[in-house]
Amino acid sequence: MKHKPTDYDNTFSIDNVIFGFDEGSLKVLLIERAEEAFIGKMALPGNLVRHDENLDLGASRILYELTGLKDAHLEQLYTFGDINRHPLGRVITVAYYSLIRIKKYKLQPKISFAKRAAWIPVAEIPQLAFDHNVIVEKALDRLRGKLRYKPIGFELLSEKFSLSQLQDLYESILLIAIDKRNFRKKILSYDFLIALNEKQKDVSHRAAKLYRFDKKRYELLDKKGINFEL
Amino acid sequence: MKHKPTDYDNTFSIDNVIFGFDEGSLKVLLIERAEEAFIGKMALPGNLVRHDENLDLGASRILYELTGLKDAHLEQLYTFGDINRHPLGRVITVAYYSLIRIKKYKLQPKISFAKRAAWIPVAEIPQLAFDHNVIVEKALDRLRGKLRYKPIGFELLSEKFSLSQLQDLYESILLIAIDKRNFRKKILSYDFLIALNEKQKDVSHRAAKLYRFDKKRYELLDKKGINFEL
Repeated sequence: MKHKPTDYDNTFSIDNVIFGFDEGSLKVLLIERAEEAFIGKMALPGNLVRHDENLDLGASRILYELTGLKDAHLEQLYTFGDINRHPLGRVITVAYYSLIRIKKYKLQPKISFAKRAAWIPVAEIPQLAFDHNVIVEKALDRLRGKLRYKPIGFELLSEKFSLSQLQDLYESILLIAIDKRNFRKKILSYDFLIALNEKQKDVSHRAAKLYRFDKKRYELLDKKGINFEL
Repeated sequence: MKHKPTDYDNTFSIDNVIFGFDEGSLKVLLIERAEEAFIGKMALPGNLVRHDENLDLGASRILYELTGLKDAHLEQLYTFGDINRHPLGRVITVAYYSLIRIKKYKLQPKISFAKRAAWIPVAEIPQLAFDHNVIVEKALDRLRGKLRYKPIGFELLSEKFSLSQLQDLYESILLIAIDKRNFRKKILSYDFLIALNEKQKDVSHRAAKLYRFDKKRYELLDKKGINFEL
């Protein structure tokens, strides 16, 4: 069908908020925009949605083209449509977000307006293009809220981790101090962490026992109605 | 700015899922569409978004025009953009939802394509226009999930209610049976229900004590970190 412009037309984009965790801090994946209008500005990896493309697929395509990331599990976050959010006219954007293991991926933008992609610590995010700081804040809210009642933190960690690393992740994302003994007792009580016959390597402190998260076991427990809560 | 059509243009709408609770059952507000293409079909109260209108305001305007409802607290639910979801071309829709007290409002559509508006029990929702059944399902999922960890059920009840009415609401929305004694003990333990010096009137059974929900008290408790959970 040929598209006839109307008063109700709007341009439509997708922006991706990708969180990772590295060196003890939560990071977000940003691109540097190459166009003159945004010179030197960083932004979320986002672009316009095609007429013939579903939103979820559009989110994956756009993320891949701008950062090289494939197969991230993207979840819809929120839709932002303030009339003045884009300097070039009305653009409504659907934000998606994902938690990934930074080390699993190599950053490699495929299209020209992404000069480079980089992981930036959340605490050091500069003024971004458009309303992207607002979008990151919304994603952080969602992440922090969800962390407390879903064991999603594991998606950010290596497959094998120590309980200290896990506690460190919760503390630095939630910006709280957690009592070590209570944390260990609580997290182990849920019975979805598997203790491995392995210890940390190449660490300067005493090597700690490693664990892995058993997702299947968690899903079983979740169905039975355990309520994870931190 | 004059709008120049591009390959990335999409038409953009908002659909509202309004839940109410009445006569012991959860209901959703639907309109009958008057246009020939949808003859006799019911749909969510939804319409196109204007170029010069923010999404939240658009949601309120559309709800008012199609049903007469004003001042409902609308929250964004999810954005649906499957390429084939609308028979007339690509229309991406942002769904909003709200919980309201049915008796507070009078239904009175203002614009012609809404032939009438009506409260339909969720269990009796017919095949709706577009993908509106999918949207209602998503809203139900959100409502059921949220009911378990936020005391939002009160938004659907009259200001004064008996504990049986409250239990009834939880049971019929969550489709579960709840033990009466445990329910009462648990819900009263949170300390956000105020017992009134009043009893039900005009009931055939023994008149029960009435309560009201103290939202301010709940918000204080929530800040202190009580975790409501049913």
